[in-house]
Amino acid sequence: MSLDPADLVPSHFRWSFDRGVGTITLDRPQRKNPLTFDSYAELRDLFCELKHTPEVRCIVFAGAGGNFCSGGDVHEIIGPLTRMDDAGLNQFTAMTGDLVRAMRDCPQPIVAAIDGVCAGAGAIIAMASDLRLAAPSAKTAFLFTRVGLSGADMGACAILPRIIGHGRAAELLFTGRSMSAEEGERWGFFGRIVADVHAEAEALARQLADGPVQAHYMTKRQLDAEWHVSIETALDMEAEAQAECMKTNDFRRAYEAFAAKRRPDFKGD
Amino acid sequence: MSLDPADLVPSHFRWSFDRGVGTITLDRPQRKNPLTFDSYAELRDLFCELKHTPEVRCIVFAGAGGNFCSGGDVHEIIGPLTRMDDAGLNQFTAMTGDLVRAMRDCPQPIVAAIDGVCAGAGAIIAMASDLRLAAPSAKTAFLFTRVGLSGADMGACAILPRIIGHGRAAELLFTGRSMSAEEGERWGFFGRIVADVHAEAEALARQLADGPVQAHYMTKRQLDAEWHVSIETALDMEAEAQAECMKTNDFRRAYEAFAAKRRPDFKGD
Amino acid sequence: MSLDPADLVPSHFRWSFDRGVGTITLDRPQRKNPLTFDSYAELRDLFCELKHTPEVRCIVFAGAGGNFCSGGDVHEIIGPLTRMDDAGLNQFTAMTGDLVRAMRDCPQPIVAAIDGVCAGAGAIIAMASDLRLAAPSAKTAFLFTRVGLSGADMGACAILPRIIGHGRAAELLFTGRSMSAEEGERWGFFGRIVADVHAEAEALARQLADGPVQAHYMTKRQLDAEWHVSIETALDMEAEAQAECMKTNDFRRAYEAFAAKRRPDFKGD
Repeated sequence: MSLDPADLVPSHFRWSFDRGVGTITLDRPQRKNPLTFDSYAELRDLFCELKHTPEVRCIVFAGAGGNFCSGGDVHEIIGPLTRMDDAGLNQFTAMTGDLVRAMRDCPQPIVAAIDGVCAGAGAIIAMASDLRLAAPSAKTAFLFTRVGLSGADMGACAILPRIIGHGRAAELLFTGRSMSAEEGERWGFFGRIVADVHAEAEALARQLADGPVQAHYMTKRQLDAEWHVSIETALDMEAEAQAECMKTNDFRRAYEAFAAKRRPDFKGD
Repeated sequence: MSLDPADLVPSHFRWSFDRGVGTITLDRPQRKNPLTFDSYAELRDLFCELKHTPEVRCIVFAGAGGNFCSGGDVHEIIGPLTRMDDAGLNQFTAMTGDLVRAMRDCPQPIVAAIDGVCAGAGAIIAMASDLRLAAPSAKTAFLFTRVGLSGADMGACAILPRIIGHGRAAELLFTGRSMSAEEGERWGFFGRIVADVHAEAEALARQLADGPVQAHYMTKRQLDAEWHVSIETALDMEAEAQAECMKTNDFRRAYEAFAAKRRPDFKGD
Repeated sequence: MSLDPADLVPSHFRWSFDRGVGTITLDRPQRKNPLTFDSYAELRDLFCELKHTPEVRCIVFAGAGGNFCSGGDVHEIIGPLTRMDDAGLNQFTAMTGDLVRAMRDCPQPIVAAIDGVCAGAGAIIAMASDLRLAAPSAKTAFLFTRVGLSGADMGACAILPRIIGHGRAAELLFTGRSMSAEEGERWGFFGRIVADVHAEAEALARQLADGPVQAHYMTKRQLDAEWHVSIETALDMEAEAQAECMKTNDFRRAYEAFAAKRRPDFKGD
C-alpha cells in the first residue's frame, strides 16, 4: 500500500507536497510550535511511511510564524513526565528516539529551515536533519540541562559532536545556552544564513529532488553507516555502494548530457 | 571511605574546594608548571578518588603564574625515559594514559583554564577536559614530534580530531606547532577567549555545580560512550540514559519552578 | 627488492625525489590533469611500493599547470563505465578505493598542494592526504552527484565528515558544489592558503622528512586506527605506540640536543 503524498492530511502539523518535495510545517505559532505526545508519534509515523513512498524525493522541515519549534511542551509533556512511572518514561524516550531513527532511516534528504526559537526537541530535529539553513533570527538551544535533564537526548551526544565538534557540543549540552545563527554557521551546524529561510530551503530541496535521488539515498545512508567503522570497512562499503549507483539510468543520463554539452535531466531511476 | 574534599592536601599541586567546586592548580610557576612522575601519579589518583566523592560536583584545572603547564619536565621525565628499559617505558605510558582515563572516567565536568604555555602533557590535560577557556596568551602545543615522539600520546590521536577535526589535528600533531588562542577558538578547542580566564572558569564551574549534576554526569558519560557506536546504538543508550534523568528530583524541581515562573533550585539528586 | 626512489619513472604522472621527499605531479595540464584507468592503477601501485621504501620519508602530491586534478576523465572513464558490466564496475570501484587504501596504508605523510580545479577523484586524493595546503585559486568539488553518482566514493562519506564535520560534508556531497579555498581553510580542510602552494608544500614535506619519521609514521597510523574505537582502546593503543617511539634513537637525540641547547638532528631511526 503506497501513500499518495498529495492526499496526506496529518492532524498535528501541516503537510504539503509539490513535484517530489514534501514540506512539514509545525503549526501552533502562538506557542512557538511545541511538540506533544501526539505530534511526536505522528511525525515518527510519517517518516516511517516515507521510507516506502518514493514519490517523495526530498523533505523540508519548517515551523510557522517565525519560529521553528519550542520543543516538548512544558504543560503537555514535561508536567506529565514528572508524574509518570518507569515504564512510561522508557516508552517516551524510546518514542522520541524513534523519531530521530525514522528521520535517519528514511531515504529522503531532509532540509531544515530554522528561524526564531529552535529549542529542546526542536534543536534535535534540526540536528537530525541532513541539511540546515538558518534565518538570522535562529536561536538554537539544546536546553535539556535547564529542565534538569542530560544532553543524552534523542541522539544528541552522538550526533551533535560530529556536526560541530566535541568541545562545542559539550559546551552547548552542559550549559544549555543558545547558539546564534552566526555561531551555527561558523561551527558547521548551518550551511548558510539566509534572509528568506523558507524559500531557500524549498529551493535547495527542489534542487535535490530534481537530482539523482537513488544516489542521494546512498549518500544519506552511507554518511550514517560509516561513522563508526574503520576506514578499511568504509572503503569496502563505498566500493559496493558506488558500483550500484553506476548501474542507474541517471548515471548514463548524466554522461550523455555531458557528452552533448547539455544539463542532465535526472529521473531518479 | 569518603574523602572530605576540603581536607585534601596534595603534595605536588594545589587544591581548593568551595561549595562543590574543586580547583586543581599546578604550582611550580618558575618552571611553568611542569609535570613529574610524582605529579602525574598524584593527579591520576585524585581523579580516581573523585569518582567516589560526590561532594565535588565540578572541577577547575589551572596553572599558577600565567602559564598552564609546560608538560613533562625535560630533566625530571624526558632524561630518565631515554635511559629506561622497555618495562619502565610501558609502565610510564600506561600511567600517563591512566591520567586521561581517570579524567574521562570521573563524573565531574572538568573546566580547563588555559593561559600562557600549554604544552605536551599540558595540552593533553586541556584536551582531556570537558570545557576549555583561554586567555589571549594561551599557546597550546602538542609538541611531541619536537622531542622525537609521535602524536599518539595519551589519547591525542583519538580525542583531538574529534574536537578540532582530523586535518587540523594532523597538522598540530605532525608539526608540533603552537595553536594560538584565536585559532583554538575558531577551531572549537576553546569555548571562549576571556581576559580573566581563572575567574571565568570558576564562574562556569560554579554554574555547572549549581545545576542538575546527575544529568551533567550522564552528559559527560554519554559524550564519550557514544563516539564509536552506531546511531542506532546511540539512540538506544540515550533512551535509557534520559529516562533515568527523568526520575531525578531535579527534573521535578525544574518543572515546578517553571510552572511557578521562578528559577529552579537544583540539588543534585 | 627495494625501489631506488630516484630511478622511478612512472608512465602516467611525473615523479621526482630529493633527500627523502618524493613528489608526484599529475601532468596532463591541457586537460587539467584527469585520471584514467591506467593512472589510477599506477598511483595505487606507487603507494603500495612506498610502504616498502623507507628512503622516501614524505610525499608531495601536486598537479601541473595551475590545476590539481579534474578527476576521472569523462571520455576515458565515465563513458566506458556506462557501458561496463557489473563485474567490471565492482572491479573499478574496488580499484579506486584501493588507491585511498594505499595512501592511508603507506607510512609516509602525504602533503597535497591544491590549486585550481580539484574535482571528483581529485578532491578525494586531497581528502585522503594527511595535510593540505591551498592556493587562493583552489576550487574543490566532490561533484559526484552532478554525474548521477553518490557521495559514497572512495571513502568520502567516512573521511570528509571527520575533516570538516558531518553537516558541511553532507552539503558538499549532496549538492556537488565547489568549496572555495577560503571556505576550505575556515572548515579545516586546508591548513593554510598560500601564494606559492608548490613551494610551501615542498617546505612542509622537507620539514617532516627531516623530523623523527618513525614517530610520524606512528602518528599517521594511529590517527586512522583510533577513529572507530573507544577512548579506552585508544588509550591502550597509544600507551604501546608511544613506548615504542621512546625506544628510538631520535627520542634520545632530541633529549641530548635539548640538554645541550641545540636543535635536534633527527635521523629517522
